[in-house]
This record gives sequence, structure tokens and C-alpha cells, in this order.
Amino acid sequence: MGAEETVDPLEEARFSWKIFKLDDHVGAGIVGLSSDARVLIDQARIQAQSNKLTYDEAIDVEVITKRICDIKQLYTQHAGVRPFGVSMIFGGVDKTGSHVFGTHPSGTYRGYKARAEGAGRETVMKIFEDEYREETGLEDAIKLAVKCLAKALDTRQLPLRVKIGIVPSATMKIEMLSDERITKYVEELGLGK
Amino acid sequence: MGAEETVDPLEEARFSWKIFKLDDHVGAGIVGLSSDARVLIDQARIQAQSNKLTYDEAIDVEVITKRICDIKQLYTQHAGVRPFGVSMIFGGVDKTGSHVFGTHPSGTYRGYKARAEGAGRETVMKIFEDEYREETGLEDAIKLAVKCLAKALDTRQLPLRVKIGIVPSATMKIEMLSDERITKYVEELGLGK
Amino acid sequence: MGAEETVDPLEEARFSWKIFKLDDHVGAGIVGLSSDARVLIDQARIQAQSNKLTYDEAIDVEVITKRICDIKQLYTQHAGVRPFGVSMIFGGVDKTGSHVFGTHPSGTYRGYKARAEGAGRETVMKIFEDEYREETGLEDAIKLAVKCLAKALDTRQLPLRVKIGIVPSATMKIEMLSDERITKYVEELGLGK
Amino acid sequence: MGAEETVDPLEEARFSWKIFKLDDHVGAGIVGLSSDARVLIDQARIQAQSNKLTYDEAIDVEVITKRICDIKQLYTQHAGVRPFGVSMIFGGVDKTGSHVFGTHPSGTYRGYKARAEGAGRETVMKIFEDEYREETGLEDAIKLAVKCLAKALDTRQLPLRVKIGIVPSATMKIEMLSDERITKYVEELGLGK
Amino acid sequence: MGAEETVDPLEEARFSWKIFKLDDHVGAGIVGLSSDARVLIDQARIQAQSNKLTYDEAIDVEVITKRICDIKQLYTQHAGVRPFGVSMIFGGVDKTGSHVFGTHPSGTYRGYKARAEGAGRETVMKIFEDEYREETGLEDAIKLAVKCLAKALDTRQLPLRVKIGIVPSATMKIEMLSDERITKYVEELGLGK
Amino acid sequence: MGAEETVDPLEEARFSWKIFKLDDHVGAGIVGLSSDARVLIDQARIQAQSNKLTYDEAIDVEVITKRICDIKQLYTQHAGVRPFGVSMIFGGVDKTGSHVFGTHPSGTYRGYKARAEGAGRETVMKIFEDEYREETGLEDAIKLAVKCLAKALDTRQLPLRVKIGIVPSATMKIEMLSDERITKYVEELGLGK
Amino acid sequence: MGAEETVDPLEEARFSWKIFKLDDHVGAGIVGLSSDARVLIDQARIQAQSNKLTYDEAIDVEVITKRICDIKQLYTQHAGVRPFGVSMIFGGVDKTGSHVFGTHPSGTYRGYKARAEGAGRETVMKIFEDEYREETGLEDAIKLAVKCLAKALDTRQLPLRVKIGIVPSATMKIEMLSDERITKYVEELGLGK
Repeated sequence: MGAEETVDPLEEARFSWKIFKLDDHVGAGIVGLSSDARVLIDQARIQAQSNKLTYDEAIDVEVITKRICDIKQLYTQHAGVRPFGVSMIFGGVDKTGSHVFGTHPSGTYRGYKARAEGAGRETVMKIFEDEYREETGLEDAIKLAVKCLAKALDTRQLPLRVKIGIVPSATMKIEMLSDERITKYVEELGLGK
Repeated sequence: MGAEETVDPLEEARFSWKIFKLDDHVGAGIVGLSSDARVLIDQARIQAQSNKLTYDEAIDVEVITKRICDIKQLYTQHAGVRPFGVSMIFGGVDKTGSHVFGTHPSGTYRGYKARAEGAGRETVMKIFEDEYREETGLEDAIKLAVKCLAKALDTRQLPLRVKIGIVPSATMKIEMLSDERITKYVEELGLGK
Repeated sequence: MGAEETVDPLEEARFSWKIFKLDDHVGAGIVGLSSDARVLIDQARIQAQSNKLTYDEAIDVEVITKRICDIKQLYTQHAGVRPFGVSMIFGGVDKTGSHVFGTHPSGTYRGYKARAEGAGRETVMKIFEDEYREETGLEDAIKLAVKCLAKALDTRQLPLRVKIGIVPSATMKIEMLSDERITKYVEELGLGK
Repeated sequence: MGAEETVDPLEEARFSWKIFKLDDHVGAGIVGLSSDARVLIDQARIQAQSNKLTYDEAIDVEVITKRICDIKQLYTQHAGVRPFGVSMIFGGVDKTGSHVFGTHPSGTYRGYKARAEGAGRETVMKIFEDEYREETGLEDAIKLAVKCLAKALDTRQLPLRVKIGIVPSATMKIEMLSDERITKYVEELGLGK
Repeated sequence: MGAEETVDPLEEARFSWKIFKLDDHVGAGIVGLSSDARVLIDQARIQAQSNKLTYDEAIDVEVITKRICDIKQLYTQHAGVRPFGVSMIFGGVDKTGSHVFGTHPSGTYRGYKARAEGAGRETVMKIFEDEYREETGLEDAIKLAVKCLAKALDTRQLPLRVKIGIVPSATMKIEMLSDERITKYVEELGLGK
Repeated sequence: MGAEETVDPLEEARFSWKIFKLDDHVGAGIVGLSSDARVLIDQARIQAQSNKLTYDEAIDVEVITKRICDIKQLYTQHAGVRPFGVSMIFGGVDKTGSHVFGTHPSGTYRGYKARAEGAGRETVMKIFEDEYREETGLEDAIKLAVKCLAKALDTRQLPLRVKIGIVPSATMKIEMLSDERITKYVEELGLGK
Repeated sequence: MGAEETVDPLEEARFSWKIFKLDDHVGAGIVGLSSDARVLIDQARIQAQSNKLTYDEAIDVEVITKRICDIKQLYTQHAGVRPFGVSMIFGGVDKTGSHVFGTHPSGTYRGYKARAEGAGRETVMKIFEDEYREETGLEDAIKLAVKCLAKALDTRQLPLRVKIGIVPSATMKIEMLSDERITKYVEELGLGK
């Protein structure tokens, strides 16, 4: 999921969200230099398609994460380039289950049950640690996400602009929640201003 | 649109305007090093033609923006080159509607409803924020632009030299407004000196 | 064997262990930058397969160690790259017996009877020096390892999270001990909290 | 046009003038490092011939200027080279009329009605601004040039050594004025010492 | 010959000795970075085999020394690499007799009758200068070596761990002395602790 | 012409003169690093032969000068090399007459009626400016040169060692004056010590 | 000729002399980094053989000198390498007579009647200047050399170790004088200690 912090009223928000679909079953959220992220997003999409063509099956979430992190690592070890200035969270569902991987500009990645990156990260991680349970279902997870984002934005005195992408285990298809649905959750939870 | 700030009376203005047609339906305004901009303008025109040849349809405004920003990004990450010293605003109409994208030398871009770059930017953005409405039609948009440019030049005590390019949704063809038409708007608005 | 020091309760431990199988008969533990380690792990696996294809026999533990250390050395002597920021311990059984090799980012390696690297190394090496005997059997060796890791983690006031990989001389096959089996050892030894 | 400032009495002036014919209809004046200028002059001549061979028509004055300025730009953005230390003024007549372009080592160029570069530039530009008129004919333009150069050299207490190249709209052929003709203008204007 | 200074009781000494067989008739001792030395040892072995294949005779001791020193020299003169951080002593018997060559990281080498490198070098060289005689036979030479190493280790308060390789003129085959044989010499000489 | 300043009595002067024949009709004098000069002399001779083979006529003196200066320019603009540390004077006779070109390490060159470079240059140029006349014949020119060199060497308190090369317009062949002929001129002029 | 200054009694002098045969008729003495010298000696021998194969005659002494100095020059002008840290004196007899050339790390060379380089150079050059005569025959030249070396070593309080190579005009074959012959000269001259 992603909270958009821009408050420029003349900006077209739809071109600035920070969640990208990489393949039917996997997406990524970015924090950092969006121009650097684009390069990696393009690579990730190529890797996903290439895996499908080569093995006739959807790429594992860890594999796509590793491929991108191998590129990141390369850019930290070799001269003539600078490292990618972007952290990414990969999330998706594959034949081994649901996965979330947090990555670092150095190319390091780790698996997580729930993960946040960027400004407001501490606020969100604290809520996750207090309220996240392994057995949390999809609906409750979305509500938890909405709550986290609302708190994080509120702490930083920013308006509530939220974008959420989900990959339900049932469908294994990434979908972006409509603004209406998010608004409903916000109202149910008594959040927003 | 573009306001020309040069006041060298011996300059041939027609070779110095900062608005370029990239394809029938899309143009760009530049701020910064015009020699660097030329390289990107040339690339943008090639991308537009290449898209037409490959897919037999006009390139999307976001796609041409992304292509040029990918080049900009490359020049910030790789050794042996320096970044392009130019910001560009891409504007045009494609099958998904009218779009304006502001870009940065880092290769970052964002979509906008109305956007200004360069000297006088603050003056113009303030007027946009106060007076721009989503429902503004083309005629009123041009008047707003003329007003913005006139104010920005006046603030900097420069003569009123204005060039405006438009891409009407109806025609999807970029056209540069004639000096006569601009003069008419200036007079209607009671601007100029 | 490896002790996982992360205490982030939301991390998926199974993606963060620091022991890797390189081939049926040989594995490696890593300390340092995990993104750098991945590059070398990938190379080691390729070397192991390549040896099998070329000579139709499993790669010697020293040979796989030397190959990886030759790559490490290359990255210290040639411009355009930085050295790998990772120490690795290779362990396995080949036709010449059981071997443990400790390696250094410079590409130096040495053979050991028992070896530890990383945080807590001093604690572990002291126990090894006091208690390790050449004639120690596999069962006792595992117990010694569990004891070492428990002490090292306890000294650093970290919870007892332990992963152990063994390559029995009898089977010459690497296997990761199940959490249950490790727990049993921990209880037998009266360790953990 | 060009004023030669060298006063070494043993120099062979004919090898030191700073005006070069690039093609029948276009020439260039240089200011700066003559060795760098030679590289660009050679390139400009190649571009002019290449245009003639490819399109069977004389190269546009702006096109030849752009080509050379693109090379200049390249040398400012890429490592392994230094920028060209030379400003150039391109002048000529093509199917779109008479043109003068001033260029900068960065690769920027602009169109001008009348332009001077180098030492004495301020003196000359002031006279141009006061006395140049759009309707000035060729004869009067030459006289104006002679006057400018004489004033500029006089201000710097240098002897009157002047070389003038013209491209009449009628012939579209560059020609260097003979010393006799220049002397006649000097006398008519009551200049020289 | 080589004295091993490591006193880590858990180290497997057999992987750490500093004497290497390069071909049947020639070996080398190393001092310095063992990872750098491995690269040169590998090269020396290739040179020896290549000489045998090309000329059908064993490589001269000076030739193998020169080949390796030419590589060392290359790494001091060319950019993009750092010099090899290792001194090496080459010793062997070829058709021109017995030879010992001392080499330097710069690629310089010199022939010696007896030579030591590394920690304890001064102690050893002093004994060599006092006691070495041209007419010393193999048995006495080994005893002298054992004495030197024992003194050098004793001076540095290290335990007596000694490895000796010899190339008898009679056999022209390098052989590593067994621990038993070395122990016998040590006892004969009344050395060790 | 060239004055040799070395006074090492054991030097073989014939290998140290600074005048080189480039082709039958053209030669060059050098000042600066003789090792750098050799590279350019070799190139100049290749250019001269290449011109003869391609066009079946002797290379123009200006053309050979330009070719060498283009190489000099290249070495000032591109990384990975340093500029040539040598000034050169090219002199010769071609179908357009007699020419002397002075060149600079930057690659700049200019035509001269008479030219000197190097230590003593000021002394010589002063005499040239006072005494050189356009109508000076070959014999008088040689005498003037001898006088200049004698004065320059005398000012610097160096013995009179002089080498003179001439290219008479009549023969268009470069020839080095014999020591006897130079001595005769010296005596006629009452110079030397 | 060469005086060996090493006094390490365990060194094998025969591998350390500083005189090298390049071809039958030409040799070189070196001063400086012997590892750098080896690279140039190898090149010189290749040039000599290549000349013999190409032109079926022995390479001129100046030509072999120039070839090596061209390599030296290259290493001073191009990036990615450092200059050769070695001065060399080339000496030999070819169809144009006997020649001695002194060279410099910059690639400069000059012809000499007699030349010394390295430590003790001043002492030797002084004797040469006082006592060398053009008409000196081979025997007297050798005696002069022995005297020079003896004085130079004596001044530096070093033992008399001397190696002399000669190329008699009669045979045009380089030969190294035997130790006996040198000893005879030393005794005749009443030198040595």
C-alpha cells in the first residue's frame, strides 16, 4: 500500500502513486528516487515475462526480488555507476504462498510478515508490531493498513491520500482498491479529516 | 507556453523560442541549457516517429515523457557523462486525454493540471493555484497563461514577449499562436506596456 | 551452523538464515553483506555443478573454497570493483574427508577443525578451544555447537534462535536440522530461556 | 568580418585570418583557440558536403550551425574530452534567407541580425545597436562593419588590419573583399591612420 | 623451507604451509598475502606445463622465476591493478644446476646461494652468512635450515613448527620432508622445546 | 636553422642536432622534449609519403603543418594522453612558394617570414625585425641566420655550434650546409671566438 | 661496462650483472629498476631479431636505441601506465661504425663517445673527460674503463667487482671479458685492494 504525500493541488495524482504492478501476481512499492525506481520496475517486468516464457509459470516472489536485488548489488560493487537510490517492497502470492520482501539499496533483502518503508515508517511499524497477527484475514489486513497510513499521515500533518494494492491468495491477482472502497474503510474506522 | 526573456534588440527571436513541437500532438517547453535540451528534443522526435512506425499510432504523452526521463536518469547514474542541465514540460493530447508532465534533470517526472518552470515560476504557480479550475476551457486557459506570463515578466521588469503553443483536444494538433492573436489577448486583458 | 540475531518480530526468519547449501555434500555460512554473499553463493553453486559435469565427481571442499577465494582476490586487486564485504565458512565432506575452511574478504583461506566468524566469535572460539577434541563424534559436535551459539547469544542478550546444518561423513549429504531436533538439544543441555 | 590583431611584423597575415569559407554559401568567423576551431571547421565542411550529397541541396545555415553545436555540446557532457575553446559566428544565405548565428563553447546558439564576438565586442555591439537598421543594404552593411572594426581596433590602439567576407543574397556565394576594396571603404569613411 | 607461525590450535596446518610444488623439479616459498600468492602459483604451474609441452623439457628455474616476475612487474606499471603483495623464493634443480632466486613485489629477482624472507629473516640470514659454505652437502644444508628456523622461531617465542622441501641434485625431484625426519634432525641438533 | 647548446665534450653532436628532413622539400626544427618530437617527426614523414602516394605530388608545407598540429590538438583535448611538449618550426618550398610555419604545443600554427623558437628567441627575433627584408636573397638570409645564432649563443655565453638547413626555391630540395661552408660565413662575418 | 655494487656474500653474482647482450653486435647496460629493464631488454631483443628477419641485416645501434626510446616515450604520454624507471646505455658496432647512446626514462637519447650512468657517474665522467681521446684503441679503452670503475667503487668504499662487455670493431661481436682478464688489467694498473 502507499500513502501519497504530495500536496501540490495542481498535480495529477494518478501519475504519482508509488505502487506498481510487476506481473499478475506480484507488485512493488517504492521509496526514494522515482527515476531510479523506474529502471528497476522495467527490469522486474522483463524478468517476470522472461520467467513465464522460459518456464511457463509465474515467477516466484522471492526470485523476482532476488533478480532486482542482484542488479542493485552490482551497482554498489562496480565502478562507473552509482547505487540505485531506492528501497522497494515486493509483495505477491506464488505457489509457495503469500510473501512480502523488503529490499535495500545495497541489494540486501529480507522476508517480512508486514513491512513499511519511507517517511512515517516508525509509526507504521509500531502499529504493525502491536496489532498484526499471523491469522489476520485480508479484510482486517486492509483495515490495519488504512489505519497505519492514516496515523502516519496524521502524525506528519498531511491530508489523507491513500492508495492500496492487494494480492488475495484466492485469486493470486493484484488489484488496486478503488478510492470508494478505501473511503468506506476510512469511514468505518472513523479516520480522515 | 513560453516567455522569452532576452532583450538583445539584435537577436532574431524566431530562433530562440523555448517551445518545440515533438510530434503532431505533443510539444515541450524547456528551461535551462538549450544545447542540452536540443539533444533531448532530437531524441524525443525520434521516439515519436519510432512509435508511429512500430505501433502505427501516435505516442502517448506519458510514454514520450518516460523515454526522455529514462535517458536523463541514465546520465545521472553512469560515469563518463554529466546529467542534462535542463527541465522540460511535456504537453499534449493522446487517446487517454490531455496531459502535462513536468520533468527534472534527475529523470523524475510527475503529471500536472497546470505547470510552470524557470524564472518567474513562483509568480505563475501562485496564479495557477488561485485561478485554475478543472473546467476551464481552452480560450480561458490561454487567457490565464497570457496573464501569468505578463505578470511574471512584469515582476522581473522585462518587456512582454510571449510565445504560446496549444494542443486543442478537438484537433489533437499542436499549433503555435500567431503574434496577432496573442496581442489580441493581451489587449483584451488590459496587459502589456 | 548459524545463529540468527535479528529480533524483528515481523521478519520471516526462513528467508534470513545465513547457511546455504552449495551442493549435496558442501555448504557455507556467511557473515557480512548478504547481497555480496549472494553473488558468491551463486558462483559457488555454478562451480559445483560445472565440476560435476566436467569430471563426473563432486567438487572437493578445498577446490570450491579456492574458486570463490580466487574471485574475492580478483576483486581486491583490480580497479573498477570493490572487494566483497563478506567472510564465509565452507564446510563439507569429500573423498579426502571432512573439511572446514574459513575465508577472508582478501581471498585468503585456511583449513580449521572448528571455526566461527562474526559477532560473538570470541565467545565461541574460546569454547571450541577448551572443549573441541579431534575424536568428537557428530552428536557431540552438534551439542557443542548448540552450546556455543546459546552462550554467544546469551552474552549479547539475544533470544536463542539457532539454525544448524550438518554434513555427516556417513551420508556425505548436507542436511539442515529441524527446529524440533535443535530444541531437543537445547533442552538436554539445559539452555535457552 | 574579422579584424586581425596580431602586430608581429614578420607574420604572414594570409595564414592567420579568422574567417573561413565552409561552403559556397556559408562561412564562419572564429574567436578563441584556433587549433580547436580547425577541428570544427573541418567538421562543418564535411557536414556541408555530406548534405549536398545526401539531399542534393546546399545545407541550411541553421542546420550547419546546429551540427557543429551538437558536437560542442557532446564535448561538454562526456568524460574523456574537454569542451572546445572557441566561439564561432556562422553567416550565410540559404533558401530561407540571410542568417547569422552566434555560438558558444557550451553548444548553445542563437540567431542574430548582427553579431560580434571576441576582444572589442562591446565597442562593436554598441555601434550595431545604434546604427544597424533592418533595411540596411549590403553596401551600407559593409561600411558599418568597417567602421565598427576601425573603432574597435582604435580603442585598443591597434593598427587597422581588416578582413571582410560577405555572402550577397543575390549571388548566394561567399566572397572575401579585396584589400583594395576595403581600403577604399576606409578612405571614404575617413578612417585608418 | 618454511616455518609456520600460526598458533591457532584449531587450524588444520596441512592447508596453511607456505611451500608449493610448481613442477617436479622446482618449488616456491611465499611470504605475504597468500591470496595474491595463489594467483602467481597457479600461473607458475601453467608456465611449467606449457614449457614442457612446447619444448619437451623441464622449465629452467630462472625462466619460471622470470615469467612470474614479469607478471609482477606488469602489475606495478599498469593502471587498473595493484601490485602483488607477496615475495617469493623459487628453488629447484635444472640442467644448469641448483638455483635459488629471491623475488620482490616490484618484479625484481636475484640469484642466491641461500635466502630467507619474512619475519625472522634477519636471524636466519645472519646464521647463513656465518655458517653456509659452498661445499655444504644436502644433509648439512637441511640441518642448517632446521637450525635457522628453530632459532628464528625461538627468538620470536613461537613453538617449533617446521616444514622443509628439498630438491636433491641427484633426483631433481622436489620432496617434502616428513614430520618424523624433521623431528629427528631437531633432536640431533638438540633444538625444539 | 639550429644552434646546438650542449657543451658535453663527449657527446656525439651528429645525433643531437635539432633539424629534421621530413621530405625532399620540407624540414622542421624542434624545441622542447626531443622524445616527443620524434613521434611527430615520424608522423610528418608518414604524412608526406602518404600524400605523395595518394596525389602523386609533394605535400604542401601548410598541409604537413596542419596534419601535425591536428595531432597536437587531439592530445590537448582528449583524456588519457598529455600534450606534446614540443614547439616546431616547419619550413619548405612547395608549388605555392616558400613557407615558414611556427607551431605551438596546443596545435595552433601561424605563417611567418622569419621565425625563431627556444632559448635565445628574443635576441634572434629582434635582429630579424631590424634586419630582415622581404627581398633578402638566400645568401644574405643564411648570413643573417648565422649572425642571429652567433649573437644568441654569445649572449648566453655558449660556444658557437651551428647547424643550418636550407630549401632553395630553385631546387626545392632541402640541404644541410656543411660545417666548412658555415665556418666560411662565420669568418666572413667576423663572428665566433 | 658495469660495476656490481651488491655486497651480499650469499648472492649469486652471475644473475645480477647489469650488462645484457641484445644481439651479436650490440649490448646494453642498465641503471634503475631491473624489473622494468627486463621488459625493455626483451623488446630490444625482439626488435633486433625482427630487423634481421625483415631486412636480412643487423639492426643499427641507433635504430634499436630509437625503438626502445619510442616505447619509453609512449609510457610518459599515455595514461594507464607509469614511465619505465630505468636509464640504459646502448653500445655496439654496425655498418656505420661504433656507437654509444645514453637514454633517459623520458625517451630522450643522445650519442656519446664515452658515457656512464648511475651511482659514481660523476667520478667516472670526470676521468673520461680528462683522459678519453678519440684515438684511444680498444686495449687502452678497457684499461680506462677498469680505472674508472675502480675509482668509482673506491670512492663509495665498495669492493672491486667489475664486469666488462666489449664490441670490437674488428669482430663486431659482443663479448664479456673473463674475470681473469679483468683481474690482469686491475693488477697491471695497480688497482683493487
